[in-house]
Amino acid sequence: MREPDDVTPCEASEITSWDDTAEVVVVGFGAAGSCAAFSAVEGGARVLVVERTGGPGGAAALAEGIVYLGGGTPIQTACGFEDTVEDMYRYMMAACGPDPDEVKIARYCEGSLGHFDWLVARGVPFDPAFCAETSMAPAGTEGLVYSGGEDAYPFNEVARPAPRGHLAKTKRSTGWLLMQHLAAAAVAAGASVATDTRVDRLVVEDGRVVGVQGQCFGETVSFRARRGVVLTAGGFIFNDDMLRKHCPPLVRGTFKVGTEGDDGRGIRMAQALGASVRNMYAGEVSLPITPPRTLIHGILVNGKGQRFINEDTYMGRVGQSALYEQDGEVFLIVDEASYEVNWMGLAATWVGATPAELESEMGLPTGSLQATVDLYNRHAASGEDPLFHKGRSWVRPLVPPIGAVDLRIGPAPYAPFTLGGLETSVGGEVLDLVGDAIPGLFAAGRTTAGVCSFGYASGLSIGDSTMFGRFAGAGAAAVPLSA
Amino acid sequence: MREPDDVTPCEASEITSWDDTAEVVVVGFGAAGSCAAFSAVEGGARVLVVERTGGPGGAAALAEGIVYLGGGTPIQTACGFEDTVEDMYRYMMAACGPDPDEVKIARYCEGSLGHFDWLVARGVPFDPAFCAETSMAPAGTEGLVYSGGEDAYPFNEVARPAPRGHLAKTKRSTGWLLMQHLAAAAVAAGASVATDTRVDRLVVEDGRVVGVQGQCFGETVSFRARRGVVLTAGGFIFNDDMLRKHCPPLVRGTFKVGTEGDDGRGIRMAQALGASVRNMYAGEVSLPITPPRTLIHGILVNGKGQRFINEDTYMGRVGQSALYEQDGEVFLIVDEASYEVNWMGLAATWVGATPAELESEMGLPTGSLQATVDLYNRHAASGEDPLFHKGRSWVRPLVPPIGAVDLRIGPAPYAPFTLGGLETSVGGEVLDLVGDAIPGLFAAGRTTAGVCSFGYASGLSIGDSTMFGRFAGAGAAAVPLSA
Repeated sequence: MREPDDVTPCEASEITSWDDTAEVVVVGFGAAGSCAAFSAVEGGARVLVVERTGGPGGAAALAEGIVYLGGGTPIQTACGFEDTVEDMYRYMMAACGPDPDEVKIARYCEGSLGHFDWLVARGVPFDPAFCAETSMAPAGTEGLVYSGGEDAYPFNEVARPAPRGHLAKTKRSTGWLLMQHLAAAAVAAGASVATDTRVDRLVVEDGRVVGVQGQCFGETVSFRARRGVVLTAGGFIFNDDMLRKHCPPLVRGTFKVGTEGDDGRGIRMAQALGASVRNMYAGEVSLPITPPRTLIHGILVNGKGQRFINEDTYMGRVGQSALYEQDGEVFLIVDEASYEVNWMGLAATWVGATPAELESEMGLPTGSLQATVDLYNRHAASGEDPLFHKGRSWVRPLVPPIGAVDLRIGPAPYAPFTLGGLETSVGGEVLDLVGDAIPGLFAAGRTTAGVCSFGYASGLSIGDSTMFGRFAGAGAAAVPLSA
Repeated sequence: MREPDDVTPCEASEITSWDDTAEVVVVGFGAAGSCAAFSAVEGGARVLVVERTGGPGGAAALAEGIVYLGGGTPIQTACGFEDTVEDMYRYMMAACGPDPDEVKIARYCEGSLGHFDWLVARGVPFDPAFCAETSMAPAGTEGLVYSGGEDAYPFNEVARPAPRGHLAKTKRSTGWLLMQHLAAAAVAAGASVATDTRVDRLVVEDGRVVGVQGQCFGETVSFRARRGVVLTAGGFIFNDDMLRKHCPPLVRGTFKVGTEGDDGRGIRMAQALGASVRNMYAGEVSLPITPPRTLIHGILVNGKGQRFINEDTYMGRVGQSALYEQDGEVFLIVDEASYEVNWMGLAATWVGATPAELESEMGLPTGSLQATVDLYNRHAASGEDPLFHKGRSWVRPLVPPIGAVDLRIGPAPYAPFTLGGLETSVGGEVLDLVGDAIPGLFAAGRTTAGVCSFGYASGLSIGDSTMFGRFAGAGAAAVPLSA
C-alpha cells in the first residue's frame, strides 16, 4: 500500500492497463498548463490535461492577474510610454536577482511583444489606459500599471522606466478573466481534460517519462503520454513541511497566494526522478500598503525605529524585506498631510503630537523614531533621501502630529508564494542534477524556477508561466513518439 | 562516455568485477568519516574508507577545531561553569533556528557528555582552562571558550549561559590535532583506507545501495558495500554553481572554509537517487572581528550608518547578518579607549574628531552616523542598549575622536561554509522525498543538514559530524548483509 505522500516513480511495466493514451499529458490546468496544452495541440499532438480540482483556474485565477510584458506593447504605446527590449532586459537583470537566469530573461524579453499578440489572439482584452495609483489591479479596468518599482531607485538608474504590468480588461478579477480565455483556448484547440484527478507520480520506461498515475475519486488511474509529460502543477506555498525545509520565513505568511494544489507535488515527483531544483528559498511577499500612493510620503520603519527601504519601490519588494529581513516588524509613519486609510482599511493605530510621543505609544526604544524622523526631515527639507534614495516627488519633511500604521504580521496581511522549483531549459525540459534533460519530462509555471531568482515584479509569475508554458507544450509535442 | 560531473547511480549488474568488497564503505575521511569508520568497525563490520585526497583530514583538519559539548563536561566543571542538558537544549533550540531539528538537538544534548568521554577515549586531550578573550581558538592551549553567544542577548535570557566550545590541547591547530586522533583511531580499530580515490556515484541493486564507483588516477574502481554506504563527503562551499542555485550570498565569501572536496558531490549523488535535502540556503559566515574583546565596546554599523546587531554576540552571527542581510557593508566604530588592532591586523581605516567628520571621511550619508552614535550614547550613559541589548559590561558612551574599521568584503575576510544538505534520521539514514530511509544509504557531517537550520555556534559542525558520524557508522554496520 503506497502512502498518500509517495512520489516514487512507477515503472510502465507495472501498469496493466492505461485509462487513456495521449501524446502529451499536461499536469495542472492553470496559467502554465492551459498555455502548454494549447501549444502542444498546435504542435500537432493529442493532448490530455489532468487537473486535480473540478475545473481550470489554478493560482492564476485567484491572483491579481497581471502579466509582465514590455518592449513597446500596443498598450504601452497607447498610454504614451516608450519601452525597448533592452530596457526591459536591463531592468529584469537588476530586479530579478541575485544572479537571475540570464538566458531565460533574454528569451522572455525578446518574446514579450509576440507573447502580447499571442494573448490577444487567445481573446484576452486589454484596456489601453494607465493607472498611476497602484502597482496591483486598479479599481477600474485600466490595462497598465507600474508593477515592479521600475520608476524607483535603483532600477530607474539602470534602465529607462516603463510600466509593464498588463491587466486583462475587467475590474479587480483580471486573473479570473485571463484564465477564462486561456482555458477556453486550450479546449477550443482540442485538448481533452480529465478533472478531479490528482496526479501522484510519473511513469517511466527505460529512463524516459511515458505517463502519469493518479487518483480520481479513490480510483487509481494511469494516463499514457507517448511524447511527453508537462508538469504545470503549481508551487509549494501550501506545503508547510517544504516551506520549513527550504524557505522558513514563508511559514509565517498569513494569506498564502495559491490553491491547496500548490503542495509541491509536481516538484517532488520530478525530484524523485533525479530532477534538479533551484531558488527554493525565494518567495514573493505581497504587503498591500498602497493605494493610495500618497502614503509613500511617509516612511517605513522596523522594530528598532530604523528605515530599511525606499518607500516608493514595488510593494512586493517591501513585503520581501519585511518578512525575510525585518522579522515582520514593520510600521508606516505618516503625517496628516499624507494620511489616508488605505484600500484594505489599514489605518493609523497610534498617533503622537511628536515623534517622541509616538515612539512611546508604539513601544519603540526611546529616541529611536525621533532619530530616524530627524535625519529623514533634515534631508527631506531639500528633497533628498541619501540613505534610501526615495524619489524627490515623494520626499517632504514629516510634520507633527504623526501617526503609525501597524504593518506587523497579523494586523497586516503578508501574502506569499514560492518562486523556487525545478530547473528547466528555456524550452521547458526538466534538467537532472548533471544539467541534462530528463527524457519525456517538461515543466513550466511555479513548478519551476522561473525568471526570478529572488527579486520579483507583479506579473512575472503569470508572465513566465504563460510564455514558458507555451514553449514547454511545443517542446513536448516535438518529442518523437514512444513505442 | 560519462561526464565528469555525472552522479547518476549505476546498477550493480553493470559492474563486472569489484576492486574490493567491504561491509561498510565510508566516503570521505574527515571528522564524520573517521568517526563513522571507527563505529562501524566497533559494530563488527569490515570497513573501507574511500578518500579523494592523499590522506585523512577534510575540512575539520583546517578548521578551528572547536567541538560543541555541554551538559557539565569535566572541562566545564574544572573551569567553574555549571551546565545542564536542559540549558544546552534550550540554548540550541533558540540559537540553531529558525525551526531547527528538535529531535536531533535533543539527541545531541543528551549524548554530549558521553561524546566527550568518547573523544577522550580516542586520545583527544583537553586542557581544563577557560579563555574569555575569544570565541575561536585561543592563542594558548585553553580547552574552553564561549563559542555561540550563550552569554549575550537573547540567549542569556533563554538558558543559563555556559561556554561549550571545547578545543583539543594545542596552540591554534586544534582541528588538525583532533583529526590526527580520530583518523588514527579508525585505522587502529581496523578500518582499511583507499586514498586518492574520488567516489563518483552510488551503485544500486533492487533499490538498495550496495557500493560505490569512483576514480583512482584515471582508472574506474568499484567497491562493494555488503551492509551499507556512509556518505561523509563534506558540504558544497567549493561548488559555485550549487551556491548560486541554493545560497547565492555565499558566492561572495572570500575565504571559503573547507577543501576542494567540498564540491557537493556527496549530496548530489544521493539526490540523484531521490534523497531529500533541507536548509540549503543556510551557511555559517565567520567574520573575525575579535579578539581582542575590548573592541566590543564599539558599535557595528551598516552602509546606512545604522546598527544591526548586538556586538557582544558570537562573531559568526555577526558574519551571517553582514553577508546575508547587510550586503557585506559593515564597519566597526570605536573610540580611543577601546581601540586595538585586532588579531588579524584589522585596523582603523578612518578617524574623525567627531562622528560628523568620521561619516564624511567614510562616505556615509550626512547625519547618519551622527544619529546612530547620539542615540547609542544617550542610552549608554546609563549602561543601556534598548535597541539591540548588548550586555551592560560592554556598553559605555563612545568618546570622540572615533575611528572606523573597514569590515566590508575585501578589506575583511568573510569565511563561509554551507550548513544545508541531505535529510537524515538521527541514526544517519538518508531519507527520500517521502521521508523513508533509502536502503543501504547513510550520511553524516556537512553532506547532511545537521543540528543547525541556520543559526550556528562554533563547534556545532565538528560536533554533529563526529557524534552523528558515530551513529551513522553504527547504523550501517547493523544492516543485514546483502547477497
